[in-house]
Amino acid sequence: MSDKALVLLSGGLDSTTLLSLAINSLGSKNVSTLSILYGQKHDREVTAARAIADYYNCKHQVYTLPNLFQGYGSTLIDADKENPELSYQEISESYGVSPTYVPFRNGTLLSIATAQALIDGVNYIYYGTHSEDARGFAYPDCTPEFNGAMANAIYVGTYHKVRLLTPLQWLTKREVVELSQSLNTPIHLTYSCYSGREMHCGKCPTCVSRIQAFKQAGLIDPVPYEMPIDWEE
Amino acid sequence: MSDKALVLLSGGLDSTTLLSLAINSLGSKNVSTLSILYGQKHDREVTAARAIADYYNCKHQVYTLPNLFQGYGSTLIDADKENPELSYQEISESYGVSPTYVPFRNGTLLSIATAQALIDGVNYIYYGTHSEDARGFAYPDCTPEFNGAMANAIYVGTYHKVRLLTPLQWLTKREVVELSQSLNTPIHLTYSCYSGREMHCGKCPTCVSRIQAFKQAGLIDPVPYEMPIDWEE
Repeated sequence: MSDKALVLLSGGLDSTTLLSLAINSLGSKNVSTLSILYGQKHDREVTAARAIADYYNCKHQVYTLPNLFQGYGSTLIDADKENPELSYQEISESYGVSPTYVPFRNGTLLSIATAQALIDGVNYIYYGTHSEDARGFAYPDCTPEFNGAMANAIYVGTYHKVRLLTPLQWLTKREVVELSQSLNTPIHLTYSCYSGREMHCGKCPTCVSRIQAFKQAGLIDPVPYEMPIDWEE
Repeated sequence: MSDKALVLLSGGLDSTTLLSLAINSLGSKNVSTLSILYGQKHDREVTAARAIADYYNCKHQVYTLPNLFQGYGSTLIDADKENPELSYQEISESYGVSPTYVPFRNGTLLSIATAQALIDGVNYIYYGTHSEDARGFAYPDCTPEFNGAMANAIYVGTYHKVRLLTPLQWLTKREVVELSQSLNTPIHLTYSCYSGREMHCGKCPTCVSRIQAFKQAGLIDPVPYEMPIDWEE
């Protein structure tokens, strides 16, 4: 039996680059994708995920997890909380844990992906966290320590049938952008913005980080922004 | 701030004894309970869990996780699969992984409990797996290896706010019964049977294991069975 992979695909830059990497290793017929609606304020990114899966001719599943994460105060979930207009670096310096942290979201999403992998007979889960997610402990469930513990729990808890792969975990966002170039990732189809509006806002933490990474790599991001971006800066 | 615990309460003998242990340590006002409907064929055990929480005057929450575990072939979930009439020992000898294994269920339930613990400001999760669940790898997500990995993932992934406790993990079922006696656990309110019928069937793996444990402890189980049980045997 050939190796099969399930990629947790949010529709953003990181998980789409991860999908390219999985397809590069295993071929698109052995790779399927899973997006999870967990109560985030918008589902614009799932629309992007579907377009990306279609582009690669990969199976795309959407799982809806209802009513779990409300009430913690995450700005991604709770209607009365506004997302900050800061970079992740500023967040990690000023807040410690990010106000966009969703309580144990990634453990929950990885557990759901593991259940789905067992049902589908898939032996690898690809998870696209990178080193800047982990910086300053802004997202504790993106750290190598967390990834390693979950990898062990998944491997043991599935009687050694499913393995967690986190091939981006030591990369900076700039290196993810550079990897996406070398893999011909369809970046133009990705969506990263917290706003959920049609175009990227350019101001939320994930837009700021995305723009910065393209600038550092000396590249122009092909997705549309609501504001002019000086890519030469 | 005093320590607070969230107990994953199925309504069975093990998790109810665990609840007694948590209350014995922290007092009932610092202990809340969580039951999860994850697609199991019946919700009889959640009725028991509610009665047990009421008995102790503890908060009881029920979370419903829809449409995740179907299609794997677990006899606890899939309508076309019948639960075996065997002991866990026979299962571990004849099947390896139990036909009642639900794909990565315990990782998923623990992740949901962790999210809820963060929302509720709770710092301990109590999880009632014991050594006979782990025997022969029948339930890989009940092994000390799994528990340790999840404990690490939970501790790291919640920025050290939530800790997983598994105080029954080295006990036999007989020792759990003996512990329940010393803690005055309301065993008469518990429900363990896979059948979901009002009385315990006495034949499914969990009934067989429960009856055996009471006999080994020299005690009579107070719950009603559909068949006469010779407790002196």
